[in-house]
Amino acid sequence: MPELRQNLATREWVIIASERARRPNVYAEAPERLLSGNRPTFDPGCPFCPGNEELDLEVSRHPAEGSWQARVVRNKYPALAEEGPVLRRNNGVVRTITGVGYHEIIVETPLHNTFLGLMDVPAVTIALQAFLDRGRQIAADPRMEQIVFFKNHGERAGASLAHAHSQVIGLPIVPGDVRHRIEEARRFFDDTGQCVFCTMLEYELAGRQRVIAENEKFVAFVLYASSSPFHIWIMPRDHRASFLNIDPADLPMFADIVRNVLHRLYTRLNDPDYNLVIRSTPVKEPENGYFHWYMAVVPRLSRTAGFELGSGVWINPTIPEDCAAFLRD
Amino acid sequence: MPELRQNLATREWVIIASERARRPNVYAEAPERLLSGNRPTFDPGCPFCPGNEELDLEVSRHPAEGSWQARVVRNKYPALAEEGPVLRRNNGVVRTITGVGYHEIIVETPLHNTFLGLMDVPAVTIALQAFLDRGRQIAADPRMEQIVFFKNHGERAGASLAHAHSQVIGLPIVPGDVRHRIEEARRFFDDTGQCVFCTMLEYELAGRQRVIAENEKFVAFVLYASSSPFHIWIMPRDHRASFLNIDPADLPMFADIVRNVLHRLYTRLNDPDYNLVIRSTPVKEPENGYFHWYMAVVPRLSRTAGFELGSGVWINPTIPEDCAAFLRD
Repeated sequence: MPELRQNLATREWVIIASERARRPNVYAEAPERLLSGNRPTFDPGCPFCPGNEELDLEVSRHPAEGSWQARVVRNKYPALAEEGPVLRRNNGVVRTITGVGYHEIIVETPLHNTFLGLMDVPAVTIALQAFLDRGRQIAADPRMEQIVFFKNHGERAGASLAHAHSQVIGLPIVPGDVRHRIEEARRFFDDTGQCVFCTMLEYELAGRQRVIAENEKFVAFVLYASSSPFHIWIMPRDHRASFLNIDPADLPMFADIVRNVLHRLYTRLNDPDYNLVIRSTPVKEPENGYFHWYMAVVPRLSRTAGFELGSGVWINPTIPEDCAAFLRD
Repeated sequence: MPELRQNLATREWVIIASERARRPNVYAEAPERLLSGNRPTFDPGCPFCPGNEELDLEVSRHPAEGSWQARVVRNKYPALAEEGPVLRRNNGVVRTITGVGYHEIIVETPLHNTFLGLMDVPAVTIALQAFLDRGRQIAADPRMEQIVFFKNHGERAGASLAHAHSQVIGLPIVPGDVRHRIEEARRFFDDTGQCVFCTMLEYELAGRQRVIAENEKFVAFVLYASSSPFHIWIMPRDHRASFLNIDPADLPMFADIVRNVLHRLYTRLNDPDYNLVIRSTPVKEPENGYFHWYMAVVPRLSRTAGFELGSGVWINPTIPEDCAAFLRD
């Protein structure tokens, strides 16, 4: 019997289509996709490889001195413009805001043939430090309301360049989707006095059916109401609304679990395409008891179609507990 | 300068990325994609071609007597099961509902090498009559809360079979996404005494910059806040909350505009992949002043990636007014 499951935090329903259910292993890509041997360490035509630094406008490099391990550059085709005031126009029907904001690339390694799941923890930590530093700087711009960190890994996930990188966009608005999630979290807090994300984490740790990795500071689990195969949340054990307020001393632990999860996807599913996003509270909101930042990892192994578009309900043809067991082993 | 635009009805923001903007004609597919000559009228291996009717469980045929012009069959791999009660489980964290519902295919023509955009209006009317009849029957099942009609046209839109068909899913819940849109519409009505969709339609008809087709009963326009290139709404001029309450006498006019819009996409963009959905009020809601049914047509010409996933904000690399002009000519 198929089952509808609700995500407690977002209140979104998914259909776990057990009648069509497929074993997790059918989602493994061909082993030929694995990086080893397929790509050179250095590609002279790659804008993100060392030696081509002048091709993009550099924002920062990490470490600041010596050869860089991570770099932040401006996106060559930015979705938003950095200069200019936030101007609103509203004639009662048409609402417009000038598209000011930031759109930057975080190059996560100088090497052309590696990525976060294959790097060591100190190298991943440097990349995540670049996320944090840059996020804090963008947040200091009074025009900014929301910062979105994301990664498109592989063509199906929207990547156009192979060299490992993430992106950060600073927006002059709080997106409706973000506002909606915060309102749901606040409602849960009003009803129960608890953070809905802490509640979910506690439940996952009690049952352990969907937990795939953990360390002292973070837990990774396949979502109970996964909208697609291998839909994963990486959640800090410490309650904190904003990623930007993370204790920098916790970054190596964050790096450890990110590397662990991406390494599992790489080895168990042969480097699938995926998106990764950090969900965090709007930059002008104070720390609070109800929102809890996390990272979502969403492999692009099934296609969304008209039904998802028309209903917001996703059909997931895998059993989340099976996906977790497959990644755990 | 890029611009953020808000959809008045959904309150979703999109980024109109004018700095990356591409001319509408770059989205035209190769003319080789056009059906003419590429496919036979009849494919003996196609489950939806005449002669293979026994391969699927038939629900209804239209007309009921003689050779059929449209047929409704059960989906062979249904996401939901028809039999059984709606049972809810809720332990405070985990919420589950049994996956009961309908998942059916509307085969829109007996011919293997045509589709709604190439059929004549009487033939499209018969297909839409099948939508309506079947929708009303499903709505009569007291377990059902929402009916979603949708089409996946082409592989990138999620279609696995080429023969022209749509799908209908009956759900035992009102999806959060639907509820959210209704709440926004009700809020607009409370504030202004008007239907937000009627207001948008009136605005489009006053300016005409984005209108691409119209007849006595319907108007088609590219959305002011299009989330992707050529994002189109087909809206009835008459205010009505549910598609299921359409006057059957209006179906030929609906068929006329659907055919018109899909024909334009076919000839101007060389048969792009697209999704099509009907947005309608939940089946148990009465007719009301604030919600207004419509059909959305969303060509799959750009890819959603991590940013859209993480923010709910879409980046549209085209100017909606240019897309409308391109389809109008």
